[in-house]
Amino acid sequence: MAVTAGTAGTGDPSANYGGHSADGPTVSEIGEAATIAAIREAAPSEVNGDDAAVLDPAPPNSRDIATTDVLVDGEHFRLDWSTPYEVGVKAVSQNFADIQAMGGRPTAVLMSLSAPADLPVGIVSDIARGISATAAPWGVELVGGDVVTSRQLIVAVTAIGVLAGPDPALTVDAARPGHAVVASGVIGHSAAGLALLNYYGSREAVPDNPVLQDLVSRHCAPRLIVGRGSVGRAAGMSAMTDNSDGLIRDLTTVARRSEVIIDLDGAALTPDAQLYYAAEITGDDPWEWVLSGGEDHTLLGTTDKEPPAGYRIIGEVKDAGDATKFGELADPVTVDGQRPLYVSGWNSL
Amino acid sequence: MAVTAGTAGTGDPSANYGGHSADGPTVSEIGEAATIAAIREAAPSEVNGDDAAVLDPAPPNSRDIATTDVLVDGEHFRLDWSTPYEVGVKAVSQNFADIQAMGGRPTAVLMSLSAPADLPVGIVSDIARGISATAAPWGVELVGGDVVTSRQLIVAVTAIGVLAGPDPALTVDAARPGHAVVASGVIGHSAAGLALLNYYGSREAVPDNPVLQDLVSRHCAPRLIVGRGSVGRAAGMSAMTDNSDGLIRDLTTVARRSEVIIDLDGAALTPDAQLYYAAEITGDDPWEWVLSGGEDHTLLGTTDKEPPAGYRIIGEVKDAGDATKFGELADPVTVDGQRPLYVSGWNSL
Repeated sequence: MAVTAGTAGTGDPSANYGGHSADGPTVSEIGEAATIAAIREAAPSEVNGDDAAVLDPAPPNSRDIATTDVLVDGEHFRLDWSTPYEVGVKAVSQNFADIQAMGGRPTAVLMSLSAPADLPVGIVSDIARGISATAAPWGVELVGGDVVTSRQLIVAVTAIGVLAGPDPALTVDAARPGHAVVASGVIGHSAAGLALLNYYGSREAVPDNPVLQDLVSRHCAPRLIVGRGSVGRAAGMSAMTDNSDGLIRDLTTVARRSEVIIDLDGAALTPDAQLYYAAEITGDDPWEWVLSGGEDHTLLGTTDKEPPAGYRIIGEVKDAGDATKFGELADPVTVDGQRPLYVSGWNSL
Repeated sequence: MAVTAGTAGTGDPSANYGGHSADGPTVSEIGEAATIAAIREAAPSEVNGDDAAVLDPAPPNSRDIATTDVLVDGEHFRLDWSTPYEVGVKAVSQNFADIQAMGGRPTAVLMSLSAPADLPVGIVSDIARGISATAAPWGVELVGGDVVTSRQLIVAVTAIGVLAGPDPALTVDAARPGHAVVASGVIGHSAAGLALLNYYGSREAVPDNPVLQDLVSRHCAPRLIVGRGSVGRAAGMSAMTDNSDGLIRDLTTVARRSEVIIDLDGAALTPDAQLYYAAEITGDDPWEWVLSGGEDHTLLGTTDKEPPAGYRIIGEVKDAGDATKFGELADPVTVDGQRPLYVSGWNSL
């Protein structure tokens, strides 16, 4: 039931959806049913299409995991920088990273799409295709969703996952002194990609160079390594999170919640050749990308065992003494024993 | 990582959030961490606060259910008509109704909040309180969420539920000729409440009369009956949905997907005294509220057994012959064998 007639949202008249609006009808022209049909065609699932989705039975002794993230046009993506397909990839990747960071594996995805009335339905289909393609390697489908009219394009994705067996989840409060800090995946590449987009001003202006194209792609469509979270849990890791807000910031959460100090190894974090190459172009310090850049969705964890396959050691967990108990530890993450050069990361508000 | 500096959304300058902005800081003034803290204080949960929420173990032989719905300010609610608390109630109710309509019970709620930067954080807390209070009678908590800045206030809620035991879910394609059509709850009250708000122009202008106040409340904060979906499944019902888009429209989905005709009993649907009372004021036909009004989230189902406790018979399922197979059945829902007086319902786009 509409609250009032005639309040249907319309897109910002200046928005051309990054040139993706070239042809095809808009969501308001084809209506709700046809838009949902387009999504289901782009991201097929047998269990989608009733009041709610009924998922496959969970393994015995399992617990569900759930997380949700929102991507707002102009805030978290720009359609002149990212393709709609990449927006779908990003939405799934950041949610699945959170599922992985608990040591689990994803089992289902739902999408709530708030779309301006003049949004071409092809963009909706491409977002759904990106979601479907990113979820597929995990055996996961887009099982449900909602589509509404709004002034701004907003993609809210919820992921459900499973933690099989009785072992504990990998929480941010489980780092203990003596544990190694480990990481699986690149750090700083998403931030470098963003800096390149800002430097060149548009996606098209980024030179056709594999290093630069890869960094930009890392920003627009972060890539996860399938199953790496479950591997970490099976290998007995203690704490886990992912690099979403920035390396120092995310590890600060782990340190504070675990009441420990985390000392990172500068040598292990040294920016790689790709980052130095990009930094020479943009004039940035690649260390800033490594320390405060987020959105790589690289898994960061701690362990008192050998690092699991694919993880490398980047630091160690130390005793905080009584400092955390009295709230004295403003900066519980250090690099080679010193306060990091760059700390601040992403803040949504 | 912000895409660009300075793109933080700001609310429509003409919006005063329905007078709820009288005091207190805005979400951008207190920032992301404090806003999340305010939500967690208003809707406490032990499992909220890590990368993702780990839920309690599911019962043996159970399957998960998942659904999501979005409420957009100005589209699905108005803050000068609904309190923020009621918006939270409505967001949970419409999702839990979908879980109930599969015959399940909800187990967790997640909220993605897109908020203008100038939104008073008190509104966010009140929405969270409404979510928490509505979920509580089901033993359900707000287990996770996300908060971002956008131009428009948008509340996207995802509900997870469980279907215990091997019995099938109550799907929309399971109505069979000879089954009775049953309903549990009021029909048309939400539409009447909306009509009253439109008639009086503001919430405050609605007379302090229990009938009118109750109808308006039914629109702003639909009430579910706890456990009624599980009762229906335990009692062997066949199909189930909820009255969200309009009685005829929702039952048309059941009829089409089940390839049957549904004939409703006009006498069983006769508008009640409250609806006639309100219709005399607004000048509407109360039959329109009953037949095309949605958002009561009353459960509608079919059964070949005695109606379960709390359900009443409102019609019967009939054989469609070959009509549906050839796409000939444009209007598969009738009232006393005739085409309904009012058909159209809510369309989101």
